Amino acid sequence: MPLRVGAAGQCRCSGLVSLGRNVFRVIEEFVLRVPNRPEQVEINRVSPDVDGGRYAVKRVVGDPVVVEADAFTYGHDEIAVRLDYRRHGRGKTRWQSVWMEPLGNDRWRGEFTVDRVGEFRFRVVAWRDPIATWRRDIVAKLDAGQDVDLEREEGAQLAEGAAKRVGPDDGKLLLTWANRLRTKFDEATRADLEQLVAYDRSLLDPDDGNVFEQTSTIWVDRPLAGCSAWYELFPRSASPDARRSGTLADVADRIETIAAMGFDVVYLPPIHPIGVTHRKGANNRTQAQPGDPGSPWAIGGADGGHTAIHPGLGTLADFDRLVAAANGYGVEIALDLAFQASPDHPWIREHPRWFRHRPDGSLAFAENPPKKYEDIVPFDFDSEDRAGLWSALLDVVRFWIDHGVRVFRVDNPHTKPFLFWEWLIAQVRAKQPDVVFLAEAFTRPRVMEQLAKIGFTESYTYFTWRNTKHELIEYFTELTTPPLSDYFRPNVWPNTPDILHETLQHGSRGTFIARAVLAAGLSAHYGIYGPVFELQERAAREPGSEEYLDSEKYQIRHWDNDRPDSLRHFLARLNEIRRAHPALQRNDSLRFHDIDNGQLLCWSKSWGSDHVLVVVNLDPESVQSGWTSLDLSRLGVGWDDDYVVRDLLTGASYDWRGPHNFVRLDPASVPAHVFAVERVNAGSG
Amino acid sequence: MPLRVGAAGQCRCSGLVSLGRNVFRVIEEFVLRVPNRPEQVEINRVSPDVDGGRYAVKRVVGDPVVVEADAFTYGHDEIAVRLDYRRHGRGKTRWQSVWMEPLGNDRWRGEFTVDRVGEFRFRVVAWRDPIATWRRDIVAKLDAGQDVDLEREEGAQLAEGAAKRVGPDDGKLLLTWANRLRTKFDEATRADLEQLVAYDRSLLDPDDGNVFEQTSTIWVDRPLAGCSAWYELFPRSASPDARRSGTLADVADRIETIAAMGFDVVYLPPIHPIGVTHRKGANNRTQAQPGDPGSPWAIGGADGGHTAIHPGLGTLADFDRLVAAANGYGVEIALDLAFQASPDHPWIREHPRWFRHRPDGSLAFAENPPKKYEDIVPFDFDSEDRAGLWSALLDVVRFWIDHGVRVFRVDNPHTKPFLFWEWLIAQVRAKQPDVVFLAEAFTRPRVMEQLAKIGFTESYTYFTWRNTKHELIEYFTELTTPPLSDYFRPNVWPNTPDILHETLQHGSRGTFIARAVLAAGLSAHYGIYGPVFELQERAAREPGSEEYLDSEKYQIRHWDNDRPDSLRHFLARLNEIRRAHPALQRNDSLRFHDIDNGQLLCWSKSWGSDHVLVVVNLDPESVQSGWTSLDLSRLGVGWDDDYVVRDLLTGASYDWRGPHNFVRLDPASVPAHVFAVERVNAGSG
Repeated sequence: MPLRVGAAGQCRCSGLVSLGRNVFRVIEEFVLRVPNRPEQVEINRVSPDVDGGRYAVKRVVGDPVVVEADAFTYGHDEIAVRLDYRRHGRGKTRWQSVWMEPLGNDRWRGEFTVDRVGEFRFRVVAWRDPIATWRRDIVAKLDAGQDVDLEREEGAQLAEGAAKRVGPDDGKLLLTWANRLRTKFDEATRADLEQLVAYDRSLLDPDDGNVFEQTSTIWVDRPLAGCSAWYELFPRSASPDARRSGTLADVADRIETIAAMGFDVVYLPPIHPIGVTHRKGANNRTQAQPGDPGSPWAIGGADGGHTAIHPGLGTLADFDRLVAAANGYGVEIALDLAFQASPDHPWIREHPRWFRHRPDGSLAFAENPPKKYEDIVPFDFDSEDRAGLWSALLDVVRFWIDHGVRVFRVDNPHTKPFLFWEWLIAQVRAKQPDVVFLAEAFTRPRVMEQLAKIGFTESYTYFTWRNTKHELIEYFTELTTPPLSDYFRPNVWPNTPDILHETLQHGSRGTFIARAVLAAGLSAHYGIYGPVFELQERAAREPGSEEYLDSEKYQIRHWDNDRPDSLRHFLARLNEIRRAHPALQRNDSLRFHDIDNGQLLCWSKSWGSDHVLVVVNLDPESVQSGWTSLDLSRLGVGWDDDYVVRDLLTGASYDWRGPHNFVRLDPASVPAHVFAVERVNAGSG
Repeated sequence: MPLRVGAAGQCRCSGLVSLGRNVFRVIEEFVLRVPNRPEQVEINRVSPDVDGGRYAVKRVVGDPVVVEADAFTYGHDEIAVRLDYRRHGRGKTRWQSVWMEPLGNDRWRGEFTVDRVGEFRFRVVAWRDPIATWRRDIVAKLDAGQDVDLEREEGAQLAEGAAKRVGPDDGKLLLTWANRLRTKFDEATRADLEQLVAYDRSLLDPDDGNVFEQTSTIWVDRPLAGCSAWYELFPRSASPDARRSGTLADVADRIETIAAMGFDVVYLPPIHPIGVTHRKGANNRTQAQPGDPGSPWAIGGADGGHTAIHPGLGTLADFDRLVAAANGYGVEIALDLAFQASPDHPWIREHPRWFRHRPDGSLAFAENPPKKYEDIVPFDFDSEDRAGLWSALLDVVRFWIDHGVRVFRVDNPHTKPFLFWEWLIAQVRAKQPDVVFLAEAFTRPRVMEQLAKIGFTESYTYFTWRNTKHELIEYFTELTTPPLSDYFRPNVWPNTPDILHETLQHGSRGTFIARAVLAAGLSAHYGIYGPVFELQERAAREPGSEEYLDSEKYQIRHWDNDRPDSLRHFLARLNEIRRAHPALQRNDSLRFHDIDNGQLLCWSKSWGSDHVLVVVNLDPESVQSGWTSLDLSRLGVGWDDDYVVRDLLTGASYDWRGPHNFVRLDPASVPAHVFAVERVNAGSG
């Protein structure tokens, strides 16, 4: 329970702790004199922490923040350890405090809840606690029948000392204590000692506390940043009429259906004018044919750049109407921030310094030698006019924010300087702390981690390439374990326009269902690239490729969204289950359970009394069955309890008891159970 | 191979990295402007490290320091990562540098050797390497048969740019390169590109490097701090004549024997005058009898305090002779720093402010309520005259340093402020970097770790209480694994005057041998409290106690060091083996090997081509045998190699092959093998 602590705001750093890093440098300065005052309590290994406080820990509004720390002192004195927290930045508050509780072995624990979007700070403060030490010792002596006259006087003096530091009311109470200890000391007094200690703790001399604030920043996002289901679609393929290409208005018309499928975010690939120079043709052919629409990521042409709408898609007014329509259904529109240009982007003419040029004066296009991407020109983030370029890109983000966008998917952020993103995200958040950035970086682990550290709200993952039981357990254990889970929020996708994994290429309808359940059930954030996903498109451009045949990236497609074999109703049910079960809306309780079949994956998630247990058959072809070995303690079930597992996908119920239960899953129907675990009664055995 | 790098001394911190902790504070200042320059390379997770650079990593002279770091940049540029190191403090040198090599997954590794006692610093510096990137790309294009005319010109411009930053000789060479790239480009030029890259790396613009110096301090000790065998004895029990008590002169006479046993350090409990007030009697009785000598830890009396010699032991001149005699045999005398006083210590009269007083004016003696230790008065390290007390205690250390002492065993350091020790050790080392401090703290893990962090050279351990196979493997794995092993040097003792473990009380002669082999073979530092150890004294004061009966702590004893059952010759052989085998002189290569018997413990240590394999029978009563499953890769032996294991204790040799070999050990003789592993020839199978 939080305690208001009047003096907390005045706590000061003790010299050495705040000076921090290298004590030898400090010691050198002291070389001929004794340090002013001894360090009282060591505080160490504070968690949560990202790189010693260099980066923020992430939470969403309403989350608990459980702080642990090592805290200890020399000798045998008792210590008091306090957790202070407050909002920072705009709406900065005074420190609020809770006392931390000992966990044993000098580890302490405290908890608070973050109650609004923005930055919070926390710190750990600790004192040697003379009155608690005195109480412990006098009780030991009383128990041993020793005389405690001197100890009573010492206690009285401690109470008087504390009285000098506090207001008149508290002081009066402490002086009453001092008097009581001196004049009368019976069993009643002894029973009250605990009260004196509890009271005194809040009066500890702030100057005697050591402050550890190395791990100090928490960035708190809105709930959407904690849990969401994304749906990606190409607007130009959204036309219900096969004779014309899709528009933003068509997307607006589809929003009701997508909302009914339970998705929270509809993400659109770039909607800007597309360059014509070196435009790519269908299936990524170097030469476009007349009529080929080009890749939406080749941004910029005669009709404008990053703040313009492709004329074929409509107008800014259409976009505003789309945003309004989506919001009316509780859905957000996410845009793509692809910070690169086609050779026809207006900035190439207006701001030549923002691009790198070759010795012959030509533009340096994108390449990964010997591959060349001549339809794309990267910005030169190291440009001499860096200030101009960076500000212009920030203005792009602000432009779309002004048009109601609060969610951005960022294209290839790992090819731009980390500092650019750290700066841009901080700039945006200073005014709009509710903006969400999803990092689309499929690259090396350290680089993906770094992007999350510097501020990206969510991150794409390797999920698409993790398909076996071993791979999935290993990867999701890593993703849900601190410190990674404290700053890296996985957003997992069974497919994207760039990745049609061979598991789907060679998979069955059951494979698509299994991958959707894995994504939606393992991770609080997931997304699909549709309609190709629910229509189970699986043709690759060529054998060994992860590219879709006739990919929407290079051509306009038309889809029959009402095809009877579509998974849209299945996805709607899956998202409905996620919304009804808070256990599925977070990752921190993920627990894999043993099951004696290498093709069956079994896990649970919990939140309060909500326990969801999932079993998935990873085999696309064959029925698989096995016996579970459940960790019942993670399911709110006792060893002797009867319990029911109710399949939220099919409605079927099973009476289970104990950890060992039989499961059988057929890929020809639904190769997954998503069980609600419900305790029936306490067992009698 | 170290490379001298001329420009290294000029490297500067990039703003954000050096500002360190919380980038949000920095970002706030940038809120309306673009950062001056992008961060180029991220450097992270640098090891070795103790608490983010707050404390020093420990090494001894001649040790390699292997540094690893994560280093990576955005995009696809090549990077160069450099390890800089130098001596710090007195004898400070310029940075020397080695290039770090990539280990994969953005991890880099470099190594240097510390070549003298004192403080070293290291730091990691990294750059984006434009010439290496250019070379990689032009080679890829050449391999693909693409035209590289523009690339040649770009390379020439890069070389010209580098030429501007260097001296005329280097500049001339670079301009030659530029010319060559422009005018002629054949296969020979291409083959030489590697050379240009290697050359250019040393010319990278220092201002473009990111410097990571968070993990920066290494404290380098002399070799004795890396490996030593200690022998503790009570001088007053050292008399060869049972009719009188021992003296420092008697100890001097024993030094030859102790040196012959192979011990490096002889540690003496306090040798100062002992108080008479509340003196403890034999077996720690509260009332001393006339003639009881008292505990040496009750320091101070009419004859002086911490810089005086107990008159019964001799004079300062005797002490100086003892030190000289010991040094003559290559043995060092270690003194006990027990910073506490008897009630008769002269400082109590001269400096009453250095002690805490009760409300009735009486001295506050030591207590652990309800237990009282009335023969001991602690110093008040928080005294108002703290400067006086701390300086006086520093003077005590310096007094004994002036009398030739370089090794101190510190009594109960955990009951004094950490900052006091950090200050005192730094003060001593500023003048005498070769002084060794052994922390005698048997307390909670975090407190023991903290004492090692703040500077104690070596530390007592829980070894005495770790007796089963599982306990020993778990504990020594922890002790020899970073980060603990980078700052905590275990000194393990089978017995001390305070700890006669029940394993010895109920053990056989074989138990004493086994515990000695465990101590000497598992840890580079070990010690015994003799002569009780080699004479296998095992009588406890009472059942359940770890105190010796008739302990030397409270009475004078006489020992027959020549008793035929003494283990002195065994210990001499054990120490001889340690001195002959560098593998046993360090802990970092410790590896436990499987053996299929819970009473047999098997491990190896290696250094270069020296491989020592030890097997110990932990059962005090019964013969135990089993089959090993050796990790041959840790023994310098191939799967098909024949090899010989030669028992260094008995001289017996066994021809072994493969990992599975039979071992049988009898506690009635020598329950341990200490094998030298020697490869015979490569196998033919």
